[in-house]
Amino acid sequence: MILLDGKKTSAEIKEEIALQVAELVRKDKKKPHLAAVIVGSDGASLTYVNAKVKACERVGFESTLIRLPKETTEEELLNEIEILNVDNDIDGFIVQLPLPDHIDEQKILMAVDPDKDVDGFHPTNVGKMALNLPTFISATPFGILELLERYKIETSGKDVVVIGRSHIVGAPMSILLSQKRTVGNATVTLTHSRTKNLAEVTKKADIIVAAIGIPEFLKADMVKDDVVVIDVGITRIADSSRKNGFRLVGDVAFNEVSEKASYITPVPGGVGPMTIAMLLKNTLLANSRKE
Amino acid sequence: MILLDGKKTSAEIKEEIALQVAELVRKDKKKPHLAAVIVGSDGASLTYVNAKVKACERVGFESTLIRLPKETTEEELLNEIEILNVDNDIDGFIVQLPLPDHIDEQKILMAVDPDKDVDGFHPTNVGKMALNLPTFISATPFGILELLERYKIETSGKDVVVIGRSHIVGAPMSILLSQKRTVGNATVTLTHSRTKNLAEVTKKADIIVAAIGIPEFLKADMVKDDVVVIDVGITRIADSSRKNGFRLVGDVAFNEVSEKASYITPVPGGVGPMTIAMLLKNTLLANSRKE
Repeated sequence: MILLDGKKTSAEIKEEIALQVAELVRKDKKKPHLAAVIVGSDGASLTYVNAKVKACERVGFESTLIRLPKETTEEELLNEIEILNVDNDIDGFIVQLPLPDHIDEQKILMAVDPDKDVDGFHPTNVGKMALNLPTFISATPFGILELLERYKIETSGKDVVVIGRSHIVGAPMSILLSQKRTVGNATVTLTHSRTKNLAEVTKKADIIVAAIGIPEFLKADMVKDDVVVIDVGITRIADSSRKNGFRLVGDVAFNEVSEKASYITPVPGGVGPMTIAMLLKNTLLANSRKE
Repeated sequence: MILLDGKKTSAEIKEEIALQVAELVRKDKKKPHLAAVIVGSDGASLTYVNAKVKACERVGFESTLIRLPKETTEEELLNEIEILNVDNDIDGFIVQLPLPDHIDEQKILMAVDPDKDVDGFHPTNVGKMALNLPTFISATPFGILELLERYKIETSGKDVVVIGRSHIVGAPMSILLSQKRTVGNATVTLTHSRTKNLAEVTKKADIIVAAIGIPEFLKADMVKDDVVVIDVGITRIADSSRKNGFRLVGDVAFNEVSEKASYITPVPGGVGPMTIAMLLKNTLLANSRKE
């Protein structure tokens, strides 16, 4: 069994990006500039967004963090987005989710200029992704493609089962892996809560992407030998034996499934670390598109 | 075996639309207005576009057919599209495909105002479809959803196999049928030229959508008893016994598959006639959105 090491791979990608930024600087070109907007001060969201800003600094990007109070109105947030849309120095920006309940998330995502939408959440970018046109692929699916590619895992003609049909992971993953692309050409089955006899479906899969959000959902008796397992889930489980009082668990029963798998992502340290690297990659792309 | 009669169903839909138009007229409201642009005078394309215009007239829509010479430049066509985009009287319009080789089809489709894109080909509308947001679903997938709904064919929890991953039919069909929607919630497998052991996959399907463009590709030994079969293919096969010298053949070997199927679309008279009805439905929607 080989671990698909997202931490190591993401560090490699960041190094490659840092080299490309250094090259831009050497040529007196503009550095990529990512802005992040966060409304309110939810602990987890703030941690995520700070990690993104820090990652920018490490690879030599410019970054701007815009913190707005949780009372910010939808209109005020839309104004902020419009300012970022027209600011030529900003190559890409993200609005950290979730937003407070009084703000319509979809309306906000629709207001972001698709050319600066490095999260790839705008319908125009989702549509381009579905049409296999150049675009910003959102961080988690993009990270999974990259992991599969860097570990040279063959997908063409393979039976892939995606568990979970979220708009952020499951659905785009199923679309991407079935397309004509380097990591693609797979026969993909998208499964979800209404799927009958799920274990029968997963047992035939060469590659499984678990993105259902239920801790240790995928057990060893649901997979065949030598399966490749991508675990997107990450849930905090109370654990009094740990200093911080919890441990992070994926959608896969790692201990038992890893005994049958040929490749598997650990949780944490698998898909998670890839997402920030892919956000940086999209920002670099946004910057280079302007030339 | 029950025939999924697209001709009859499409006539019913057109009648419903005609009643809605009559109601608009009674209330002194604006009638829906569809424009169609055709470049060159390819016989088949002209037949299609004329059928669309005629269908508009029959349900009481306004319609405008814009015929441009085949020498029309990309820029001239883009100008024409811009005129239609800003013309308040036009609710929706289509650009008949294929376009001459010297015109970039994707560029043209991207220029259509998404709010008037009743063909549902613009990336923004494809993205909205993929995100399960209100939008114009393109005619063929929309027509298949409508046929399944009107014949009360249960899709929830069913195993659906889509054959063919085109952007126009196969890919959107696989996305739509797996979503949370009235006709949806299915476990969908999208198959294509790289799929291994296709017959094994199709043999487990409760519902098959064949959209691969190979005449009589799906044989009886590839399906299980009581399967529901949607045949999207339509190919002209030389046939000297026919007066016009050809017959139309679908992607399904109808004679043998129909003996095992519970429901099946004929070719012609199945999916084909539904497409114009759905185009009208999208135009009606475009008109109503403005109120």
